[in-house]
Amino acid sequence: MGEVSIIGLSELPEVSPGEDLGQLLVKAARSQSVRINHGDVVVITSKIVSKAEGRIVRIREVEPSTLAKRVSRLLKKDPRVVEMIFSESRRIVRMVKGLLLTETRHGLVCANAGVDQSNIEAGYAALLPLDPDASAGRIRATIRSALGVDVAVIITDTFGRAWREGQTDVAIGLSGMIPLRDYRGQRDAHGYHLKVTVTAVADEIASAAELVMGKVDRVPIAVVKGYTYPKGEGSSRALIRPPSRDLFR
Amino acid sequence: MGEVSIIGLSELPEVSPGEDLGQLLVKAARSQSVRINHGDVVVITSKIVSKAEGRIVRIREVEPSTLAKRVSRLLKKDPRVVEMIFSESRRIVRMVKGLLLTETRHGLVCANAGVDQSNIEAGYAALLPLDPDASAGRIRATIRSALGVDVAVIITDTFGRAWREGQTDVAIGLSGMIPLRDYRGQRDAHGYHLKVTVTAVADEIASAAELVMGKVDRVPIAVVKGYTYPKGEGSSRALIRPPSRDLFR
Repeated sequence: MGEVSIIGLSELPEVSPGEDLGQLLVKAARSQSVRINHGDVVVITSKIVSKAEGRIVRIREVEPSTLAKRVSRLLKKDPRVVEMIFSESRRIVRMVKGLLLTETRHGLVCANAGVDQSNIEAGYAALLPLDPDASAGRIRATIRSALGVDVAVIITDTFGRAWREGQTDVAIGLSGMIPLRDYRGQRDAHGYHLKVTVTAVADEIASAAELVMGKVDRVPIAVVKGYTYPKGEGSSRALIRPPSRDLFR
Repeated sequence: MGEVSIIGLSELPEVSPGEDLGQLLVKAARSQSVRINHGDVVVITSKIVSKAEGRIVRIREVEPSTLAKRVSRLLKKDPRVVEMIFSESRRIVRMVKGLLLTETRHGLVCANAGVDQSNIEAGYAALLPLDPDASAGRIRATIRSALGVDVAVIITDTFGRAWREGQTDVAIGLSGMIPLRDYRGQRDAHGYHLKVTVTAVADEIASAAELVMGKVDRVPIAVVKGYTYPKGEGSSRALIRPPSRDLFR
């Protein structure tokens, strides 16, 4: 496997609703002399995808429900933000200790249904893209037509974990790759049949990209080179544990 | 932040109990012309640490308890392996659907308490290192004395997640770095005070390194270059969620 490198793209202009993010990305790569080649993985934070797709809400225009008002007191959150979280959710997983953990309409289990006020104009909050796989597919198509190369595209967000402190970036949307590498049935170097190993490589790539992105440095895009990902038309839905395998329902 | 690169080291000899893993690592890097520089992160799978430290058990020499025998029928596992898992655990988290999720003596929540039969001689199973931070510290000291450079060392294992399919590598031991990057109180590019963001950078590095390691390719070590990690004498214990913050107790 050799060497994998991850290059951050910075200096993107502030992204506005309706802008073609794929085109901005191609331009940024060109101006920063980063070549995007066949087989690279282009990783993009969901925040700028949300901005480009207009998934931005002015907080003062939100009318909180009675329940949102009550919950906001319990959790010490803005009732209008709680209302936005409820609107984005299809199930409440936990509502304790200042945390509102829900299942989004996509099936993602995360804090605040992905509603986030960081890295956005004051007074606004971003919602997750409606269909992150489709967003990734459009950006991939733009890269293909602009540069003539086929890449994988991953859209990331920052999630907490059940048993570990700190957050890591995961893949919430993707195009052009299979997100899981399945070793079951393969043999290791000692001839042992690997029984349970399925690696969430798309999440590992998302985490690797976060290392060059950070949270305050305006690096919303990274290009990963040298990693031979499982090719195919996969979906980020494969990374979401189905209810039948969820140990905590 | 620019560019991060991850270089895999392969072709290590099979590691035997009592061998000096730090010395083997330094030799492998030299023979593969990989320079280890000040500020690099050296990432090592726990499996070879376990081998070097003799944390290997011959399965047929384990005597299963009555409970281990009963549980083995429920989970369709070897009763002697169940016994090993029990010996490594201090709490059973879930025992369902073919899965034995426990809390290890270190406090790690993972399947089978980290007991693993892959990438080891047939008939044997590996246990996690007794004190992975100490193991990382010894390897770091060897690198410092052999090469005169200060690096961070991370020891990794492969864990599942509560709500997501597939496994990713995480940091179960470390030396020379702080595993969490705390953004609380910092402002983003829009002046928004980041309230909750603490990034588990050691876990993200572990996941990034897995991309060059894989599961069947005999790449047990990776060198990560270009990442400015939080310096300090941190511990992997900071990555383990304390019981008071565990939502599922």
